[in-house]
Amino acid sequence: MPDEQIRGQDGLHYSVACTEPARNTMSVYDKLQSLNIELPPVAVPAAAYVPFVQTGKLVFLSGHIAKKDGKPWVGQLGKNISTAEGQQAARAVAIDLLGTLHAAVGDLNQVKRIVKVMSLVNSTGDFTEQHLVTNGCSELLGQVFGAAGAHARSAFGVTQIPLGACVEIELIAELA
Amino acid sequence: MPDEQIRGQDGLHYSVACTEPARNTMSVYDKLQSLNIELPPVAVPAAAYVPFVQTGKLVFLSGHIAKKDGKPWVGQLGKNISTAEGQQAARAVAIDLLGTLHAAVGDLNQVKRIVKVMSLVNSTGDFTEQHLVTNGCSELLGQVFGAAGAHARSAFGVTQIPLGACVEIELIAELA
Amino acid sequence: MPDEQIRGQDGLHYSVACTEPARNTMSVYDKLQSLNIELPPVAVPAAAYVPFVQTGKLVFLSGHIAKKDGKPWVGQLGKNISTAEGQQAARAVAIDLLGTLHAAVGDLNQVKRIVKVMSLVNSTGDFTEQHLVTNGCSELLGQVFGAAGAHARSAFGVTQIPLGACVEIELIAELA
Repeated sequence: MPDEQIRGQDGLHYSVACTEPARNTMSVYDKLQSLNIELPPVAVPAAAYVPFVQTGKLVFLSGHIAKKDGKPWVGQLGKNISTAEGQQAARAVAIDLLGTLHAAVGDLNQVKRIVKVMSLVNSTGDFTEQHLVTNGCSELLGQVFGAAGAHARSAFGVTQIPLGACVEIELIAELA
Repeated sequence: MPDEQIRGQDGLHYSVACTEPARNTMSVYDKLQSLNIELPPVAVPAAAYVPFVQTGKLVFLSGHIAKKDGKPWVGQLGKNISTAEGQQAARAVAIDLLGTLHAAVGDLNQVKRIVKVMSLVNSTGDFTEQHLVTNGCSELLGQVFGAAGAHARSAFGVTQIPLGACVEIELIAELA
Repeated sequence: MPDEQIRGQDGLHYSVACTEPARNTMSVYDKLQSLNIELPPVAVPAAAYVPFVQTGKLVFLSGHIAKKDGKPWVGQLGKNISTAEGQQAARAVAIDLLGTLHAAVGDLNQVKRIVKVMSLVNSTGDFTEQHLVTNGCSELLGQVFGAAGAHARSAFGVTQIPLGACVEIELIAELA
């Protein structure tokens, strides 16, 4: 996403082109197809909440846990899940988030911007690559949405995640 | 919350009625009374911040730690707090959050929607029922607000919480 | 921040003056200068995301890790970082967040309110002063922005943070 790069750092007077991304000309669905990604149906939460809530132009998606073959992708980074596997798990979460976002919005081309991602990485005390794990999600969002997929983000290591999943990610999107 | 259920999962074309909940006809305060819940005064934060901030129609509530008899509800899930106790702690936090939300809004009937809950569960490395613990909060919000209480949510296990509390929950609400 | 104090607690009918803070009359930049703080350039993220995203009047800043002499401020509270050091680290993060916010907004005097802070403290299982650590950030925001700096907040202990940093903080600000 070259137009999102920092353009200069002359003291206090620099600028970052983060707030008005160019729109994709290719349909998000064409992009998904070219990546060979089929969106899953929205998952029914395992508890007393809903997968998403829209307020104004913002859609808040619940934390989605990583799944493999439809079951929780169990494990811990630094113990029995490698960084590369964690990236795959984070990418799988991103696909599930897109499925939920599609359900929320009706048309993913109406997504103006992915605003924010929070990524919880099930980590031992000595695993410090939560940012690399989370790139599995962030990079897919960039591939699918282009500049509109460039998001603010926090990633950090947590003690555990519901059902023992290795990664959990929540997302905020802005609609056009 | 039947009108919040997933209605169908036919490939990409399903829908979820999450965005326009029906309003309660019963007053939120009547509901609280029927549940025998008395709202507490807003707690003065233990540090350099405020209990809530409103921006536009959104109210952001600070993380509230679980309390018992006015003191931090100390303990850790997987160690010395059971899932059932954790649910009670999460329910207690929800009541405190409602007290703060009342202070923020003036009239809880003006709450259009509980948008988002983030629940931090003080957990050992092998406790994986953070979602069940958090239901203690989510279910109370559903009881009090009905469909307007159905929220997006993230729940996960953390290493520790200020003052050793077993649960901490923050909340975003939308006003009418 | 005296006008942010809880004014009364007479049962259900109390009020908190949190939503309409008085503006500072002193420029934010004068204030920064009086505190001898020089804003850093915005840091280029170590991964596939951007430092901030604006949506409507809200600016979401990515989680910023604590740095010392330009490198990650490595360590863990309860192990090899004291609460006092953690406060300094949180204060350093606040300065970096202000640098990014300046880059996002162009003029920090346009910040109407610091809405929300989420503070992740790299903690051992027996460290319970995450709120005191986070005050290092919150107090600086109060010094710089006055009443407009009083924010909602969550702080908690996490297992690890990218690159081993001792503190990571994200922030939401509202523009005028």
